[in-house]
Amino acid sequence: MIGIDWGTTSFRAFRLAPDGTIRDRRASQRGIVNVPDGRFSDTLREEIGPWLAAGEDRVLLSGMIGSRQGWLEAPYLPIPAAPADVAAALTDVPFDWARVKLVPGLNGTDAAGVAEVMRGEETQIFGIPSLLAAGGIACLPGTHSKWVRVEDGRIAGFTTHMTGEVYGAVRGHTILGRTMRDGPANGASFEAGVRRSADPGGLLHHIFGVRAQTLVGALAETDAGAYLSGILIGHEIRAAMPAGAVVHVIGAPELTKLYAGAIATCGGYAERQDGDAAAAGLALIGDLAMWD
Amino acid sequence: MIGIDWGTTSFRAFRLAPDGTIRDRRASQRGIVNVPDGRFSDTLREEIGPWLAAGEDRVLLSGMIGSRQGWLEAPYLPIPAAPADVAAALTDVPFDWARVKLVPGLNGTDAAGVAEVMRGEETQIFGIPSLLAAGGIACLPGTHSKWVRVEDGRIAGFTTHMTGEVYGAVRGHTILGRTMRDGPANGASFEAGVRRSADPGGLLHHIFGVRAQTLVGALAETDAGAYLSGILIGHEIRAAMPAGAVVHVIGAPELTKLYAGAIATCGGYAERQDGDAAAAGLALIGDLAMWD
Repeated sequence: MIGIDWGTTSFRAFRLAPDGTIRDRRASQRGIVNVPDGRFSDTLREEIGPWLAAGEDRVLLSGMIGSRQGWLEAPYLPIPAAPADVAAALTDVPFDWARVKLVPGLNGTDAAGVAEVMRGEETQIFGIPSLLAAGGIACLPGTHSKWVRVEDGRIAGFTTHMTGEVYGAVRGHTILGRTMRDGPANGASFEAGVRRSADPGGLLHHIFGVRAQTLVGALAETDAGAYLSGILIGHEIRAAMPAGAVVHVIGAPELTKLYAGAIATCGGYAERQDGDAAAAGLALIGDLAMWD
Repeated sequence: MIGIDWGTTSFRAFRLAPDGTIRDRRASQRGIVNVPDGRFSDTLREEIGPWLAAGEDRVLLSGMIGSRQGWLEAPYLPIPAAPADVAAALTDVPFDWARVKLVPGLNGTDAAGVAEVMRGEETQIFGIPSLLAAGGIACLPGTHSKWVRVEDGRIAGFTTHMTGEVYGAVRGHTILGRTMRDGPANGASFEAGVRRSADPGGLLHHIFGVRAQTLVGALAETDAGAYLSGILIGHEIRAAMPAGAVVHVIGAPELTKLYAGAIATCGGYAERQDGDAAAAGLALIGDLAMWD
């Protein structure tokens, strides 16, 4: 079968053997915001045409492709949800050259009853067998970081943190960006920012310190971006992580490395999951699904 | 004398009687970023020419006009600082038609030793006689909100919170802005946001709830901006305000009203100071200064 993690800005396709092994892969920038005029069907055919010609006829899609802004809206499935629950709630998509199904996103509420949603991360979570088997905490860092609690083989709870997007907005559109120049993302200044997030005063105060410390010469312009990043990621981790937790950090290596260091600074233990969690999750859901 | 609060985006001038009474006033948008090519001298003459012609010959300037981006850089004065300390540290500015002096900004460190700076707020603080006399806590809300501790007639400590600027960046440059439409700033949704800031999960999580609650239909698009504002202001207050404090809130009436409600929601007591604190502070400093 073919499994595709089709997000807002990226498209990643995997040709999968029956045992889940990745036989081939493709990646492009054709995320849903880069597909003009709703031409998802044409885009899909262009991307995976050779695999279809080679005989593949099952395609499973996860991620923002199933959102209102995507190809077809796949209704959210409420948590708790196991891989079999998700596999039983796929949405069929009309496509002339293969059977295409969409993985639903998940919804729930946080501890205070406020709505929560995810699309795509559930598939990555299901791609970590040890997490499904033993339960635990996962962190999927990024534009909208997710912290996920897995219990009894199901996704039992999760929260979203706008860390990456707030970093971009603050760096690009506040006074802080004026005195920042590119520099190392993961060094002493990043760690200083993570430590800073434990001080009194709150996030809105701590980020002003990026400017004040630069003004008085205590922070180099090339270190200011990493310090800001450390402050924001530190606040995310301290708010989301249970004390002393073991956290499965799922994502691209440079990001899992950054978060693993910050999690250690905040008193937790990180297990980096740099593999193809999305491919493994798509294989598992595809295997549990009814295709006929 | 003439007292001028000359900030980043606004210019407010007061013609003051010897007892501090405001005899006349002017306001314009000619803040320092709106003065081209460093033409501060010409701008000042255009704004207050008639008062100079009427015989005024002492001009006291406070605010960002004394910053590196302003007319002349007035060095920061370290805290603790009383009005007499500030009056003894004015910087003379060359100007052919009157004696012009700049009020210095203040600097210090927060509880963790991180640098802090203010320019202009010290003058407003000094314009509240009851605060100087009895000591206490002041809040000056805005783009960069200041929380200030006054003891023994001196500014003893302060912290800055980037609340207003982060609101603008998040609303204008993240996904949250896409589902926001103009609506009432100070109503039930604002208060819900302030209450939300007490929940677990942290600021970066709480603001994602603006999107999630809108997606599931629990928050109207016209209420989303006020809810976001309440979350941010609530986080500022809970991080900055000593428990059960009486807070002097200094600023424009619509902003002091918003903050007074939020301070009450967070368990504090607000005393709104909607008067011309800058004018009163300029009069006090000008009275203590050596002009000859």
